[in-house]
Amino acid sequence: MSHLHRFFSSLPEEGKASFLLPPEEAHHALRVVRLRDGDTVSVFDGRGGEVEGRLRPCGKKEAEIEIVRRMQHPEPAVKMTVAVAWLHRDKAHEDIVRRAVELGMWRIIFWRADHSQKKCAAADRWEKIALEACKQSGRVFIPEIELQDSLDALFETVSRPVIHALPAADPLQKPEILVHDQVTMLIGPEGDFSDREVALAQEQGAIQIHMGNCIFKSEVAAAVAMTLLAAQVGELGRHFSVVSG
Amino acid sequence: MSHLHRFFSSLPEEGKASFLLPPEEAHHALRVVRLRDGDTVSVFDGRGGEVEGRLRPCGKKEAEIEIVRRMQHPEPAVKMTVAVAWLHRDKAHEDIVRRAVELGMWRIIFWRADHSQKKCAAADRWEKIALEACKQSGRVFIPEIELQDSLDALFETVSRPVIHALPAADPLQKPEILVHDQVTMLIGPEGDFSDREVALAQEQGAIQIHMGNCIFKSEVAAAVAMTLLAAQVGELGRHFSVVSG
Repeated sequence: MSHLHRFFSSLPEEGKASFLLPPEEAHHALRVVRLRDGDTVSVFDGRGGEVEGRLRPCGKKEAEIEIVRRMQHPEPAVKMTVAVAWLHRDKAHEDIVRRAVELGMWRIIFWRADHSQKKCAAADRWEKIALEACKQSGRVFIPEIELQDSLDALFETVSRPVIHALPAADPLQKPEILVHDQVTMLIGPEGDFSDREVALAQEQGAIQIHMGNCIFKSEVAAAVAMTLLAAQVGELGRHFSVVSG
Repeated sequence: MSHLHRFFSSLPEEGKASFLLPPEEAHHALRVVRLRDGDTVSVFDGRGGEVEGRLRPCGKKEAEIEIVRRMQHPEPAVKMTVAVAWLHRDKAHEDIVRRAVELGMWRIIFWRADHSQKKCAAADRWEKIALEACKQSGRVFIPEIELQDSLDALFETVSRPVIHALPAADPLQKPEILVHDQVTMLIGPEGDFSDREVALAQEQGAIQIHMGNCIFKSEVAAAVAMTLLAAQVGELGRHFSVVSG
């Protein structure tokens, strides 16, 4: 299967016919994936701008992109935020960043929960993982990734409605959640939400959901909840519906 | 948060008041998680049988379970199979096994696709991973895991309907899939389905679905497709629905 190689770069002003790839991307194009003169590539700026163009090596280290077509992708109709508590393992945060990009999240927040047991430091790796995930998946918006120091601080900044994935939620409810252009999915830490946090979320109007009787690790809960949300707002296409009979 | 420790064992005949844990599980209970005399545990047999009981150490290496309550969980109303092509990375197979258990798959098949580039050997690790995932998530049925040598062989053995997650499917269709008590989700390899396989699946009545414009790696496509399927057959509870406004 032919595979379109994607590169990340700021894009030139309208009207320009070509531009240089940043050195790291040029290196990747020429030395790692070994593209040749005239190969078709995609270059995106992480904010919806994309250029389809032809690669033109200039010497051994530089590469120019000859612009064939420019596109400005519209922002998603519904901007999804995922807000996951600080978890034990750095790897879990990284997996969440990757999956969040793949599922089209607009914003990723890691927040300190009362039961978070380990400090979560903003990692340079996150940006890199998000960028790689964009390149691989064809997403053209790189999500913002940020930290918040408590659930209280989180609620100051996130968009409503907030969907609260709570293992102790009423399993018999199936809330209908009214979404305009933004929505936030809230995921707790390994030790679950504290009673204080559950009460706070309720005061703040968060809508509790129950995702079945299986016990999900936090990063799995995040992946499952993001998938359900992405499916509901149309990011996973029309996919399918099951009729039982 | 209190956490119920789960152990795997065949269960004794009805009427018995207690039984010995297998040596490995007893070691885990006494030496690794360091449970104490009288702690409440769950023991499951991987086929829906479960005992809630109290741990009674007998000497340094053995542990008896005093039965408090026995349960036989019903089989799921819809048995889901996931059939994923042989992938490049062993780790991808392992991740799929884990996620399949968490999402309640009944059967996991890895099949050799025309574009599979690497032989996939049935791994003892899979059984172990599936078992660990059952213990962690509280699932009480260990899925069968098997290999098939081609898509042709796969279709000889899998239950209908077969849902065919095909990147080239018509994005405007949203098939309604009639499911009685079984359903299979079919996922291709990194190099996608061959034309021959697409035709074969169509002949066999597989129903093509499109999961949006994002390019998913095979293991991500599997996770997303399994989540959508599990949600549709009710394995993820009632969860929620989004109403746009």
